[in-house]
Amino acid sequence: MKNLLSISDLTLDDLTAILDRAESFAEVSRREIKKVPTLRGKTVVTLFYESSTRTSSSFELAAKRLSADVMSVKAGGSSVEKGESLRDTVETLSAYGPAAIVIRHPNAGAAGMLTQWVDASVVNAGDGMHQHPSQALLDLFTLRTRIGSIDGLKIWIVGDVLHSRVARSNIEAFQMMGAEVTVAGPPTLIPREIEKLGCKVEFSLERMEEADVVYLLRMQSERMEGNFIPSVREYARLFQINEQRLGPRQLVMHPGPVNRGVEIASEIVDSDRSLISDQVESGLAVRMAILYELLAGRPVEGGEGPSDPLPTIGAPA
Amino acid sequence: MKNLLSISDLTLDDLTAILDRAESFAEVSRREIKKVPTLRGKTVVTLFYESSTRTSSSFELAAKRLSADVMSVKAGGSSVEKGESLRDTVETLSAYGPAAIVIRHPNAGAAGMLTQWVDASVVNAGDGMHQHPSQALLDLFTLRTRIGSIDGLKIWIVGDVLHSRVARSNIEAFQMMGAEVTVAGPPTLIPREIEKLGCKVEFSLERMEEADVVYLLRMQSERMEGNFIPSVREYARLFQINEQRLGPRQLVMHPGPVNRGVEIASEIVDSDRSLISDQVESGLAVRMAILYELLAGRPVEGGEGPSDPLPTIGAPA
Amino acid sequence: MKNLLSISDLTLDDLTAILDRAESFAEVSRREIKKVPTLRGKTVVTLFYESSTRTSSSFELAAKRLSADVMSVKAGGSSVEKGESLRDTVETLSAYGPAAIVIRHPNAGAAGMLTQWVDASVVNAGDGMHQHPSQALLDLFTLRTRIGSIDGLKIWIVGDVLHSRVARSNIEAFQMMGAEVTVAGPPTLIPREIEKLGCKVEFSLERMEEADVVYLLRMQSERMEGNFIPSVREYARLFQINEQRLGPRQLVMHPGPVNRGVEIASEIVDSDRSLISDQVESGLAVRMAILYELLAGRPVEGGEGPSDPLPTIGAPA
Repeated sequence: MKNLLSISDLTLDDLTAILDRAESFAEVSRREIKKVPTLRGKTVVTLFYESSTRTSSSFELAAKRLSADVMSVKAGGSSVEKGESLRDTVETLSAYGPAAIVIRHPNAGAAGMLTQWVDASVVNAGDGMHQHPSQALLDLFTLRTRIGSIDGLKIWIVGDVLHSRVARSNIEAFQMMGAEVTVAGPPTLIPREIEKLGCKVEFSLERMEEADVVYLLRMQSERMEGNFIPSVREYARLFQINEQRLGPRQLVMHPGPVNRGVEIASEIVDSDRSLISDQVESGLAVRMAILYELLAGRPVEGGEGPSDPLPTIGAPA
Repeated sequence: MKNLLSISDLTLDDLTAILDRAESFAEVSRREIKKVPTLRGKTVVTLFYESSTRTSSSFELAAKRLSADVMSVKAGGSSVEKGESLRDTVETLSAYGPAAIVIRHPNAGAAGMLTQWVDASVVNAGDGMHQHPSQALLDLFTLRTRIGSIDGLKIWIVGDVLHSRVARSNIEAFQMMGAEVTVAGPPTLIPREIEKLGCKVEFSLERMEEADVVYLLRMQSERMEGNFIPSVREYARLFQINEQRLGPRQLVMHPGPVNRGVEIASEIVDSDRSLISDQVESGLAVRMAILYELLAGRPVEGGEGPSDPLPTIGAPA
Repeated sequence: MKNLLSISDLTLDDLTAILDRAESFAEVSRREIKKVPTLRGKTVVTLFYESSTRTSSSFELAAKRLSADVMSVKAGGSSVEKGESLRDTVETLSAYGPAAIVIRHPNAGAAGMLTQWVDASVVNAGDGMHQHPSQALLDLFTLRTRIGSIDGLKIWIVGDVLHSRVARSNIEAFQMMGAEVTVAGPPTLIPREIEKLGCKVEFSLERMEEADVVYLLRMQSERMEGNFIPSVREYARLFQINEQRLGPRQLVMHPGPVNRGVEIASEIVDSDRSLISDQVESGLAVRMAILYELLAGRPVEGGEGPSDPLPTIGAPA
C-alpha cells in the first residue's frame, strides 16, 4: 500500500492489517507516554480545502504521536487564495520532500490526481461526495472493538446518503467485513441505483428494529434549507433516532459533528448505546495505523526498514 | 490540584507552590536549551473561543517547552462554526486522551463545566467576566521577582473593573499574598458592592500617590464606543497614567495589549517603572509551572511519578 | 552575522558561507531522517503580517527540521487586530526569549526596526517593496546547484520590477556572484534609474535570446486590474514566456505562485527548463542554513558553541 484513496482499492487483507495495527496504537494511546519514534525526521503535510476540526486535528495528532514533523496548510490564508491551481500548490509542497500528504478537497477524485504528481504517499481525507476511507476504517475498528466481529451484523445507514462520502466508503467497508447494509432516508436523499452497491434500500424506519447498528449521517445545514426535505421538523419527525425508535440493544454511530434534535435526539448521543466518542478515539489509533502502514510498513530506500511501533520514545529511532 | 479554574479554589500553599515552581522554569528559560522532557508523550489541547495572541501562544510555548504535543483549536475555522455545542466539541477533544485542556470562552463558568465532562485537567484561560487565574499568578510572580514580597504592598487596580476578569482574579490573589488593594475608575466602570471583596474603592486618582504598584486594565475598544465613558479623550484626561500622575518609585503593570495614549501614556510603557515585559516573560514560566503542577506534580497511573523538571532534554524522560 | 535584513549587508564570503552550509542541509533533506538536533530547546518565532504559504511554511519546516520549537503568529486572529503596534507585539514576543524572529511586513524597513527592539536574530522574510533576501539566496543556491557557477551568466529579470522586493534582492545577489543582469518589462513597471544598480534595461523581449536564465516575476492580480498595464491579454502577448520565446537551452525561474497563462505559459512551467520546483526545494535547505548561520554559527553565551549539523537526531544535542 502506497496510498489510501478509496476503500475499493483495499483487499480484505489490507483492511485487516490496518485494523490490527490500530490495535497496537490504541494500546499506545492508553500509555502514560503516548508517542512512538517511528516517523521521526519525516514530514506529514495536511492540506485541507474544506474546514474540519475532527479530521485534520486527528491526522495531525496521529502524525505527532508518530514523531513526524507536521506542516498544516489550510486553503484560507494561503497561496490558494491567490488562485494557485491545486497542482501547483501540491508540487510546491512536494518539493519539501514530505513522506505523506493528507488531503481534503471538495472535488471527487482530487486525492487520486495527486498520486500522479507527487512521490509522497497520498491519504484521502475526503474528496467531494466520493470517498472518506479513514472514516470507514475507524468505524470498522470501533465496531470490531465493541462487538468483536462485524461479520453478519445488520447495519442501517440513515439520512442524507445522496451527498455523503461517508456513506459511500462505509457501505463498501461494512460489506467487505461481512455486514448486511441497508440505507434509509427520504427518497430525495437516496441516490438512484444505490442497490447496485449491494445494499438494501428503505424509505422509512419502520423495519429498523432488525438493525444491530444504526449509522447516522450528519444532516448538513445547507441541505436543510434546500429542496431536499420539506422542513427540519418534518425530517426529524420521520427520521430522527430517539428513545421511541431505538431498541435497548441497538448501537448508534455518527461521524460527527452531531445535530442534536435533528438527526439524533440528545438523550441518545449521551446514552451508552452511542459509540460516538469511541469513534473519535478510534480515529486517532486508526490514523496512526494508516500513516504507519503507508510510511513505515514498506521498505524505504536507504532506510532501516520498518521499525517496531511499540517502543516508546526516548530511545533513538 | 487537578484543575486551575479560579484563584478562589487555591490555598496560599497552592499559590506558593506554583510560584516556587515557576522560579525553576524561569531559570530554564535563561538556559541555552530552554526545554525539559517532563510532559513528553502527553497532549495539551488549547481551545480558544476568543482570539488572543498572548495567552494562547504563551500556553502553547509553555507546553512545547515541557515537550508535550500541542493540539490548538480555534473557534474560527472549526466544527464550532458548524454550530456544535461546547460539550460535543469538548467530548470530541477529550477522546484524544489529552492530559490537559486549556480553555478560553466568553461565558463565565465554561471552564468549570468542562471538569464535569472530561478526565483531563482543565485550565481556565479566561471565562467571560469571571476569572483569569494564570494572569493573576503571573502578576504575583512578576511582583515577587521584582520586589521580593507582596505582603503589605499597596496596589491600585485602575480602569474598567466592571468588565474585567483580570480584576476579579487579581483582587483575590493580591489580597491572599497580603497586599492592600484599591480599585479606581469612573463610577460606571466600577461594579456595585465590589468592596465586599475586601478592597477599597476610589472614583479618581487623587490619592494614587499611596500606591506602590498601579495595575492598569485594558480599555476595550467596544467599551470606548459604548455608554460607559463620555469619550476616550475624557477618560484619558481623568484616568490615564502618565508622567504627571506616576511617581518615580511607583511601578506599573498591565495585562496587555496596551492602548498607548488611552489608559497609559507611551513614555510610561517604555520607562523602567513598567513591568509589562516582565509580565509576559513571567507568563511563560508560570504557565509551565501550572502545567507541571497539574500534570506532573501528582502521581499518575502507570507513570513513574513526578519527574524533576531540571534536567534538560536529551536524556530519556 | 546576527541578522539577515538585506542582500546589501552581506559580503561575498557571507553569501558563500550560507550557500555552502545549504549544501549540507540539502543532503540532510535527502536522508530518511530529515532532521538535526542543532536548535533543540530554542524558539523560532514567525510573525507574518502578509499571508504566504510558501515562505512561512518553508521557514517553519526549516526550524522544525533543526529541532527548534516554532511559534507562528499571523496578523489575522491575533492582538494585531486589536490595534497593537508592531513594536508592542514584537516586544511581547521577545519576552519569550526566542532565538530568532522571522518577519514579513508590508512596510519597507520593518525588519530593520526590529533589530533595535529585540535581542533575537531578525530574519527579513519580505518587507514591503524593499528586500526578500532568503528568496535571493535560494535562487543563487538553485542556480549554483544546477549550473555549477553563476559567474558570467546572463540573467534577465522579467515583469513587474517596480513593485518587486524579489527583483531588488536578486539584482544585487546575482551581480555579487558575477552575473550580468538585465531587467525587462513594460516602461510602467520598470522603476526610473534602476540602471544605477548596475543592471541593463529592456522594454521588450526582443533581445532575450542572449539570456542564459529568465527570472520571471509574479504579476500581482491587484496590478493587473490597475493602470500599469493595458490588459492582462496585452501583457501576456508582449511579455509571456512561452515556447515561441524560450530557447531550448534557456532556463526559467519564478518565485511562485505562478499565474499560468499570464507571465508564463503552462507548458513552460512543466518543462525541464523550469527550475521552479528546484527553487522551492532549495528554499528549505537555504532557510535551514540561514537559521543555522545566525543561531548556531556564532558562539553563544553559556552554550557549547556551534554543533555540527550533520549528525541526525537521536543523540543528545
